[in-house]
Amino acid sequence: MSSELLVGNAVIGQSGGPTAVINQSLVGVVEGLRGADAIKRVVGARNGVRGMAEKQVIDLTHIPNDQLEAIAGTPSAALGSTRDKPDSTYCERIFENCKENDIRYFFYIGGNDSSDTCRIVNELSNDSGYELRCFHIPKTIDNDLMESDHTPGYPSAARFVALAFLGDSLDNKSLPGIKINIVMGRHAGFLTAASALARQHHDDGPHLIYLPERNFDPDEFVADVDRVYARLGRCHIAVSEGIHNAAGEPISALMSGLREVDAHGNVQLSGTGALGDWLANLLRVKLTPQGGKPPRVRADTFGYLQRCFPDASPVDQAEARAAGRKAAEIALMGDFDASIAIKRVGDDPYWADMKAVDLKSVAAKTRTMPDEYIRGHNDVTEAFLDYVRPLVGPLPTMGRFD
Amino acid sequence: MSSELLVGNAVIGQSGGPTAVINQSLVGVVEGLRGADAIKRVVGARNGVRGMAEKQVIDLTHIPNDQLEAIAGTPSAALGSTRDKPDSTYCERIFENCKENDIRYFFYIGGNDSSDTCRIVNELSNDSGYELRCFHIPKTIDNDLMESDHTPGYPSAARFVALAFLGDSLDNKSLPGIKINIVMGRHAGFLTAASALARQHHDDGPHLIYLPERNFDPDEFVADVDRVYARLGRCHIAVSEGIHNAAGEPISALMSGLREVDAHGNVQLSGTGALGDWLANLLRVKLTPQGGKPPRVRADTFGYLQRCFPDASPVDQAEARAAGRKAAEIALMGDFDASIAIKRVGDDPYWADMKAVDLKSVAAKTRTMPDEYIRGHNDVTEAFLDYVRPLVGPLPTMGRFD
Repeated sequence: MSSELLVGNAVIGQSGGPTAVINQSLVGVVEGLRGADAIKRVVGARNGVRGMAEKQVIDLTHIPNDQLEAIAGTPSAALGSTRDKPDSTYCERIFENCKENDIRYFFYIGGNDSSDTCRIVNELSNDSGYELRCFHIPKTIDNDLMESDHTPGYPSAARFVALAFLGDSLDNKSLPGIKINIVMGRHAGFLTAASALARQHHDDGPHLIYLPERNFDPDEFVADVDRVYARLGRCHIAVSEGIHNAAGEPISALMSGLREVDAHGNVQLSGTGALGDWLANLLRVKLTPQGGKPPRVRADTFGYLQRCFPDASPVDQAEARAAGRKAAEIALMGDFDASIAIKRVGDDPYWADMKAVDLKSVAAKTRTMPDEYIRGHNDVTEAFLDYVRPLVGPLPTMGRFD
Repeated sequence: MSSELLVGNAVIGQSGGPTAVINQSLVGVVEGLRGADAIKRVVGARNGVRGMAEKQVIDLTHIPNDQLEAIAGTPSAALGSTRDKPDSTYCERIFENCKENDIRYFFYIGGNDSSDTCRIVNELSNDSGYELRCFHIPKTIDNDLMESDHTPGYPSAARFVALAFLGDSLDNKSLPGIKINIVMGRHAGFLTAASALARQHHDDGPHLIYLPERNFDPDEFVADVDRVYARLGRCHIAVSEGIHNAAGEPISALMSGLREVDAHGNVQLSGTGALGDWLANLLRVKLTPQGGKPPRVRADTFGYLQRCFPDASPVDQAEARAAGRKAAEIALMGDFDASIAIKRVGDDPYWADMKAVDLKSVAAKTRTMPDEYIRGHNDVTEAFLDYVRPLVGPLPTMGRFD
């Protein structure tokens, strides 16, 4: 650890699927660095690592405060994002560009792949003896990073899902039928589980919640829906896009006929209605009584609105900002390299702190929902609701006649 | 016209696809009738005409004000809705039940099919000499009713579409590609057109808007997208679910393989991602360069959230309430039968009045977007934006670096 002032420039990048608050973290870093003696210039890399490798940057040193504040409140990545997952050659190019441009502070806002990029660049700097302080600031609506109580971006997406289910459950009650809503989340069910916040009265949906933490059995699904439909005359269902069979094969990828794979080897799950349509058809076929009329079945796939709808959770906004500021603050203190994690301090009132954690403990790892948040194969527990409720901000109370 | 006090009971029903403000109109009628000397009891019919035919009602005479207020602010039909389109036998049963239960005031909140039901019931009462005052209160997110500047329900749905496109256009800018969003609206493009409110900067989406008022030509569509994609490196597109070819066949129904038809003879358009997926695939196939990589194409279908998301436009809430109150007020004044229409009085500041119009002028007719609101085959005009902007309530201003 060096205690001397490390004078140089700073670069910030944004990566992966954007969120409603990823710009709060960006502005948090800028704020945290501004005016520091050690910092000469702050630049933003366009499209994350791509801009770092190709020297496409924006100078952020003198952006007016009111413009920064407007950007902080704007969803999606203001610097542009990328799906590139840099290999070691790519990371070397980034590192060489940092050296060439006197960059001593490196901030990358993204998911677990981004923390891995930070880790590799950091190792290159350690090996070469060029001091470069590397920080990862977490961001993902999937809430699937290790070490954090939750990740910036998740509370706002959970808010959208909760509001959407609040309205849609009443729509389903108005015109009874079977309604399936497909929610984002490849490996972790946290976002799908947030649909349970829509339950304000005993018969409110979602009546069934399917998470990627449990195997999905189509026959069991049909039997579950049949049971609820017989009881209530309707059935409102939350399904994670990441549901898979016992062999671990995603149901979505099996159905869509599409096998588009991104640079990370992930099969495309979002941006298609195939899973919802397949499940709806399955229910139509299986639940039509002999010689009778098929039930009314509809499916909506919430899609990208979950990560970019401009109605962020206030807690999420404040925390994403604080995570950026914390990274800047620690970077200026000495030769640390870290990821920032949110630690919950208390629930009444809700309060959380930002902590620095080892990059290696976050990099390329995935957290899923713990068992105590999951009830059986199609529901969540009160413990999960206690966990998520303080994060999403106030939800409207729905009125009804009985 | 009778000038005597017509003493009796009142029934209110809600019909068709719910909206975010259909309960405001319900509460407006209840408020308008309460305390009137002529009114003995006010009942709500469960599930619209079905409850009227099957005598399934809720007594609304003494519901506490705070409960009424909570219901007013709640999306979807609190009394339950229906897709039933009553034929003359069905209407006779309703009329007989009205006579039997001393019902003298009949209020039906719904689209143009509901105004037709009002018209038929009203004719039965005229023919029989049993005075029954019949009122239609408009409701539809499609904004496709005659006589009204716009319909209650449309501003809130337009608000959701504008907010969704605001966020999603920035998502498309963050991770450039081709993005298609499918918006509700079977015959009228008003809701799809509201996506244009998301354009705050010169390169904001939607870059292309396809409305059901113009024929949809897949080849022209591919050429349009290709042109925008070549210029901006991305393309953000709004498509109405009701687009059809020159022969008038809906593209959606041709593609989905589903031919589910409701009681009104309408093919199912919502609750499936088929149209978006088909258009996305078309672009993938047609825009892949020889031997090259296909462009990144995604499609989202906004679905039912458009009509039930719990974030109603303030103007819409006030107008839907006022429309209900106006119907009650006129009903108590004398032997009128009418539909309520919104007439815009001024734009600066925005102001509108409620007027009674002839049931026949609304019943079973459809309004589409006038030519002056449409530019070419894939855009809207400034005149449309001037029309829609005051209706949706304040939209957040998006920040950006350049």
